[in-house]
Amino acid sequence: MQIKRVSLERIREEEEISGEDYVAVEEPMHLEICKDNCETFAIIMRTPGNDKELSLGFLYSEGVINGIEDVEKVVQKDKNTVEVWVNRLMKVKTRELIVNSSCGVCGRALLYTISILKSNLKVSKKLIFSLPSILRENQNAFNVTGGLHASALFDASGKLLKIYEDVGRHNAVDKIVGSLLIEKEIPAEKSILLVSGRLGYEIVSKGIKAGIPIIAGISAPTSLAVEIAEEAGVTLIGFLRGDSFNIYSHKERLI
Amino acid sequence: MQIKRVSLERIREEEEISGEDYVAVEEPMHLEICKDNCETFAIIMRTPGNDKELSLGFLYSEGVINGIEDVEKVVQKDKNTVEVWVNRLMKVKTRELIVNSSCGVCGRALLYTISILKSNLKVSKKLIFSLPSILRENQNAFNVTGGLHASALFDASGKLLKIYEDVGRHNAVDKIVGSLLIEKEIPAEKSILLVSGRLGYEIVSKGIKAGIPIIAGISAPTSLAVEIAEEAGVTLIGFLRGDSFNIYSHKERLI
Repeated sequence: MQIKRVSLERIREEEEISGEDYVAVEEPMHLEICKDNCETFAIIMRTPGNDKELSLGFLYSEGVINGIEDVEKVVQKDKNTVEVWVNRLMKVKTRELIVNSSCGVCGRALLYTISILKSNLKVSKKLIFSLPSILRENQNAFNVTGGLHASALFDASGKLLKIYEDVGRHNAVDKIVGSLLIEKEIPAEKSILLVSGRLGYEIVSKGIKAGIPIIAGISAPTSLAVEIAEEAGVTLIGFLRGDSFNIYSHKERLI
Repeated sequence: MQIKRVSLERIREEEEISGEDYVAVEEPMHLEICKDNCETFAIIMRTPGNDKELSLGFLYSEGVINGIEDVEKVVQKDKNTVEVWVNRLMKVKTRELIVNSSCGVCGRALLYTISILKSNLKVSKKLIFSLPSILRENQNAFNVTGGLHASALFDASGKLLKIYEDVGRHNAVDKIVGSLLIEKEIPAEKSILLVSGRLGYEIVSKGIKAGIPIIAGISAPTSLAVEIAEEAGVTLIGFLRGDSFNIYSHKERLI
């Protein structure tokens, strides 16, 4: 299953419509590498489907297998676990590599939930509409290269507080969070995070950990991002473009 | 330094112009975590700048620090190394986490260089122009959600061989490579890889390892992607949209 139906509010300049839409499914896959017994090699956030190809391609890229001749069999253990049985283990240290996330949607992500739930931040849709152009104006390196992601933090009046650009989407958010840490501003319960790209699990969980109650993106959210935002009390906004956006969770912060 | 100048060929329907453009800089940063001594915790592919914020934000997201009070000092050791000195180590296993790449641009990526250098694949620009619309037509889940990346493999006549969609850009490429492994088609020296997103180091190195001589993307390449493509003998094509694209390396494959 690659797509999942979620309910949302479509916010336009003049109207708000409750509706449904499809989002891409994102789920953690446990990749086990097995010789005499099995060990978790990586937990990969991915869209289900072709898990065996993903597992083999990943192990090959990582240098764990040199070709299909190193593989005895590949077993889809359950819907989110793949076992790759190998003839010999390469000299690469088997490690718990964590790709685009550590496991457990659970635990970690929800550490700061309470501060978000307590946050009484409310903003107007006009304020939300204004954010992308501020982001774009301040994306200096993107404007030159077209090749960088940006993350920005705004205060409750829509004023730009911080902006970082990076080839890695997650890095740009990590830079925001690191800066909040240095300035002892976590939980950042009066602020709004805007990212230039998609809203995946990892981006949203980083925002949650920093206690940010409103997380917005220019592009689409994933299924898991919608779920954890709902659970953590975060207002999740996607497809923020021009005078329109979608709200996937906790619309009560919008006035 | 966030941007870097590279030379390229601008290919349009009627003309080809040699020129220069800026790409986003991508370099590996070694994140060391130090208590009594230092240990590499992660190697993060990132755009240089605000490395201390990146390090702290990353360690916080990973649960290695609970706040700035756990940190004694942060030292930018050299341009690509940051040391984070902590008061206490959390119970998270210090591990060599590898984010968006394993280290050394070197070694691994170049294993298959020879097959690419030997590849005598040549294609017309018309064929290259035709690929994005085939990709888009076959992106079933994207068309519904707007939230998925795609990777596709084409043969020398422009015929679609494989296509995969995933929330993770790297996953979509890993699925291509895994499928090539299963079918014993590596090195895929007669094929063209097209990705829906940006061309970063990791994407291009995965293509190189699979022996693919032409790698194209709808969006921008990074500095490191251009460097390894040049070195490995890969023809790297970016900004492939409508009847135009840029070539960043090995233009001799274009006729």
